[in-house]
Amino acid sequence: MSFSHAVKRLLVGRKLASTQLGETLLPKRIALPVFASDALSSVAYAPDEILLTLSLAGMAGFAFSWQIGLVVALVMAVVVLSYRQTVHAYPSGGGDYEVATVNIGPSAGLTVASALLVDYVLTVAVSVSSGVQNAEAMLPFLRGHEGVVAAVMIALLMALNLRGVRESGTIFAIPTYLFMAGILGMTVWGFFRILVLGTDLQAETASWSVQSTSEYGAFTGFLMVALLARAFSSGCAALTGVEAISNGVPSFKQPKSRNAATTLAMLGIIAITMLLGIIALANRIGVKLIDPQGGSHYVTPTGEHVTTAGRTVVGQLARAVFFDSFPLGFYFIVTVTMVILFLAANTAFNGFPTLGSILARDGYLPRQLHTRGDRLAYSNGIISLALAAIGLVLVFNGSVTALIQLYVVGVFVSFTISQFGMLRHWTRHLRTETDPEVRRHMQRSRVINAVGLTLTGIVLVVVLLSKFMHGAYLAIIAMVVVFSMMKSIRRHYDKVAKEVALAGDADRVLPSRVRAVIFVGAVNKPLMRALNFARATQPSHMDAVTVAVDDDESRELVEAWEAENIDVPLKVIASPFREVTGPFVEYVKRLRTDNPRDVVCVYIPEVVVGHWWEHLLHNQTALVVRTRLHFMPGVMVTSVPYQLRSSVDADEKYAHDDPTAWRMVGK
Amino acid sequence: MSFSHAVKRLLVGRKLASTQLGETLLPKRIALPVFASDALSSVAYAPDEILLTLSLAGMAGFAFSWQIGLVVALVMAVVVLSYRQTVHAYPSGGGDYEVATVNIGPSAGLTVASALLVDYVLTVAVSVSSGVQNAEAMLPFLRGHEGVVAAVMIALLMALNLRGVRESGTIFAIPTYLFMAGILGMTVWGFFRILVLGTDLQAETASWSVQSTSEYGAFTGFLMVALLARAFSSGCAALTGVEAISNGVPSFKQPKSRNAATTLAMLGIIAITMLLGIIALANRIGVKLIDPQGGSHYVTPTGEHVTTAGRTVVGQLARAVFFDSFPLGFYFIVTVTMVILFLAANTAFNGFPTLGSILARDGYLPRQLHTRGDRLAYSNGIISLALAAIGLVLVFNGSVTALIQLYVVGVFVSFTISQFGMLRHWTRHLRTETDPEVRRHMQRSRVINAVGLTLTGIVLVVVLLSKFMHGAYLAIIAMVVVFSMMKSIRRHYDKVAKEVALAGDADRVLPSRVRAVIFVGAVNKPLMRALNFARATQPSHMDAVTVAVDDDESRELVEAWEAENIDVPLKVIASPFREVTGPFVEYVKRLRTDNPRDVVCVYIPEVVVGHWWEHLLHNQTALVVRTRLHFMPGVMVTSVPYQLRSSVDADEKYAHDDPTAWRMVGK
Repeated sequence: MSFSHAVKRLLVGRKLASTQLGETLLPKRIALPVFASDALSSVAYAPDEILLTLSLAGMAGFAFSWQIGLVVALVMAVVVLSYRQTVHAYPSGGGDYEVATVNIGPSAGLTVASALLVDYVLTVAVSVSSGVQNAEAMLPFLRGHEGVVAAVMIALLMALNLRGVRESGTIFAIPTYLFMAGILGMTVWGFFRILVLGTDLQAETASWSVQSTSEYGAFTGFLMVALLARAFSSGCAALTGVEAISNGVPSFKQPKSRNAATTLAMLGIIAITMLLGIIALANRIGVKLIDPQGGSHYVTPTGEHVTTAGRTVVGQLARAVFFDSFPLGFYFIVTVTMVILFLAANTAFNGFPTLGSILARDGYLPRQLHTRGDRLAYSNGIISLALAAIGLVLVFNGSVTALIQLYVVGVFVSFTISQFGMLRHWTRHLRTETDPEVRRHMQRSRVINAVGLTLTGIVLVVVLLSKFMHGAYLAIIAMVVVFSMMKSIRRHYDKVAKEVALAGDADRVLPSRVRAVIFVGAVNKPLMRALNFARATQPSHMDAVTVAVDDDESRELVEAWEAENIDVPLKVIASPFREVTGPFVEYVKRLRTDNPRDVVCVYIPEVVVGHWWEHLLHNQTALVVRTRLHFMPGVMVTSVPYQLRSSVDADEKYAHDDPTAWRMVGK
Repeated sequence: MSFSHAVKRLLVGRKLASTQLGETLLPKRIALPVFASDALSSVAYAPDEILLTLSLAGMAGFAFSWQIGLVVALVMAVVVLSYRQTVHAYPSGGGDYEVATVNIGPSAGLTVASALLVDYVLTVAVSVSSGVQNAEAMLPFLRGHEGVVAAVMIALLMALNLRGVRESGTIFAIPTYLFMAGILGMTVWGFFRILVLGTDLQAETASWSVQSTSEYGAFTGFLMVALLARAFSSGCAALTGVEAISNGVPSFKQPKSRNAATTLAMLGIIAITMLLGIIALANRIGVKLIDPQGGSHYVTPTGEHVTTAGRTVVGQLARAVFFDSFPLGFYFIVTVTMVILFLAANTAFNGFPTLGSILARDGYLPRQLHTRGDRLAYSNGIISLALAAIGLVLVFNGSVTALIQLYVVGVFVSFTISQFGMLRHWTRHLRTETDPEVRRHMQRSRVINAVGLTLTGIVLVVVLLSKFMHGAYLAIIAMVVVFSMMKSIRRHYDKVAKEVALAGDADRVLPSRVRAVIFVGAVNKPLMRALNFARATQPSHMDAVTVAVDDDESRELVEAWEAENIDVPLKVIASPFREVTGPFVEYVKRLRTDNPRDVVCVYIPEVVVGHWWEHLLHNQTALVVRTRLHFMPGVMVTSVPYQLRSSVDADEKYAHDDPTAWRMVGK
């Protein structure tokens, strides 16, 4: 077992037969953490983004934090309710993409798909970056290297996911539950100390004031509305990932829809509780954040100006609530928050490849993304996602506040479109449905989705208006690019399909005879094998052809040929350009034109070697010749491999490796 | 004609038929500049390296410059004489490599080859870097960007050389002659003004003194010897390129050897004259250089310390001789010096690929380096050389003084070994030769080579001792790497050759029957063509096989198959791992073991598309399957191409392109 193979085995683990696929179906208690970790973890940065945006208005801003929190919670509740309808109506896991395609049309579906693909990438980038930011509370030496650290973490997640869904499930369940327990416990214990024990809890920034040099300093009229809108839009980051479950229905245990819907409800309740809990407590004990880039900074009681950000809400809460009474609690909270954020990215690692393979099935992405690797996870999709996200964190050097500007847009694009789709879905079914019981149900669902559509539509507009210039336009450009790329891939596949479609019996005419042409480079065993195999097919004619590049060499060749007294005539072609392919291809072309009703079969002897670098030393000519001949109708190219000893163990290896590995061996 | 093709046509020009090869043979007047520009141009930096090394001893050092110059000139004279013998004895252009291989043995030959290959790269790097350094006299803004500028120049040279030897010849003839005229004219005119007109010429640094903080400051005993040795070693850079002619004999007009020998003599005389002329004049008018890295700096009469180097000897001479009386002369000298140095690199571009293709012929380098591209220059060699040199100038940021430390070693390794080879050559021939006239000739030659061997051997030791720690070790490491790489390539080719060599009639047994297996992915025209072609070969058995990855898809496939009522049975293989290749290969393997005496022929329908990116969307499975089947004895793989319309114009394009381009299209 080669080293690379050993490493692969280590990272990726044993194969899983698809009969074992059942095993990888998830019970609710596992599905919740796997699909909800994204939505839940966002409570670790959504409040931060709300507060630091408000800080641009100076002290006046913070007063609005809890109201914004409430609005975000409301939107979340509505979205969760709407998606419960989707989960029931479309259990196949196509999620928003399927809803939009079926009810509105392919372009709408593709728009949703582009939005989701881009957002999956952003989910990974944002969650991991935020995780690193939180980690800095304990590991300050990370500061300044956020980008690189995040990139490494993403690479690790990729490896984990290449091991398959199930393992991820169990790995991610425990910390997710610890995180829920931690945050809720902290909130409860915090308020208990304040209200019951009457302790006067103070955040480290409670006594500090915040000054803003931004244009929002004057917090009135339009500017006030604009800032609140921005804060709200950033807060909506809390909603990202809610749709993940609707894409993941197939991974649920039976009854899939019911279980998925219940999980979704649980997710909504827990997320809202955590979000409001955190904001309320932060408000109560005077947590303040600043946005140095935006232009706000702290002023300490002693009047000194502090511009270093990096304090997180959760971090400040944990410090205030636990540090004096129960220090371990502080470290526990910070740790699980950090961990959950890294794991949140995993939601995308589940959703992205699933969606990718659905798109590949529909011909919007390269076909090979549809068939799975030798693991039951869609390796290709996982790898593409990881690479895109790594690029993103490196470019933005892992700054959450910068990345969050690109975020959210995509989510609400797909929310809105899919709500509209659901609306049509119910309307269509109501036309045919007669059973009053069912109709009542449908009407209820339609109302819910109508409300959802209105609300998400409004939010989308707000998000676009308030964030476009701050980076949202980048996300939109990305979506457009992805959209048109997928469109053109589909167009290509359609064109080809039309071109190769069968048209009557025209394709049934049999070529009258087969002319065999053996490509001769040297007189050796591979050549003999090629000759024998060619003979075995009993062609009507048989030529052996060699190209004379070097006079001495070709003379030796002819002598060797005669020495072996082979019963096939050897034709030597002159090569004016010292070049093998051109003349040979010309020869075959002439053969074709002289005998149009025959098919020419070119036999190329090839030696098969073990190591990729050995391939650089062999078959280059064969490769070029075959490629060139491919452009000639009525010609088939047969490579007759001759296996060298070194190739045998190589075969052993590739047998265990995944298909992509063979490509390397190929050329 | 596609853009890339247009660009290629522009850079590389029309094809040349090998019948036109005659045209590219060089008359002496062209051969001299083409092959001598390296050796000649080195007088533009050899004196500089001598002076700046001596500067490490402070003022005391410069007194030795002319003595060192004389010794270098002496060595050069002897080497030129020796090589005249080689040119006569080995007109085939194998040069030192052939001499060493024939007279000492393959390993000796390979050592020489490695040394030469490494030195060709260094020639390009050093010459171009020095050219950039000289250019700075007129274009100061280049300072600091030497590395990048040099890299760009090398890329341009590569393009020029891909156009073929002949063009280079004419391009490089004029400036080389202008350079000779310029340097000699300057020297003569300089001394004329001093001795006849009695003008008191002073270099800009004449009135300055030089202080050294290096350990050589105390210029006595061992240190003195060591420094002189180093200065001499650096001066020997002037000898590099002398061997180029002996490798280039085949490019000369008839009588090749005679012409080459004469050209070599001319080269020697001119180079020595220029070298001594420059050093003498520089000495006379008080040119001083410094080596800031080494630890020497200028002190102006006003006592201020100047540590900026960058002044070149030629530059200072030209300024002193012409600037007051005839300014144009100054610009002329600087310009031609700059140009000649860039062109000098061209020697390597002629020598390297020639040697490379000889080594490829002998199986020390990948075979494809032997056959030419569609131009009469060895494109592959040219490109590899350029890339290596570009890497070098980027790493050393185009510093001549740094690069010169790696230089020279290789030259003298090959000088010494080939002299030893020549000695043996004559001794061997003297054993058999009887004609007294010829014997006298041979004895004379043997003496010359014996002297050459002694001298070059001594120089080699001096160079090693004085430069090893300063960078020579890098060159040696490079040689060892190249050497062992070529050895292992040869070993590989030998192993393979032995393995595939014919052994009696064992290889003549004919497989009894042919079993055709058609790989089915979809029911369409390509498949039908594959079926028809397979039928045409009248196999004893014929199976159509598909792998069921997705149940729905394979159901549709079977229906389509029946709809077309094809007379071949379609076998559907289950795929537990959602993976196509494994199961299919298994099927073929079983077929083999069940019918050991038959040969299996697998037909794979492939669509041929026009653009490389379209290939990412097609034939991936076919590619993987073919590669895997290659490892199975008794199986041949026939790809039946189906040409899409887009492929037609692509074919047009590749027909004009060179073989390497097709590889891209291949996969």
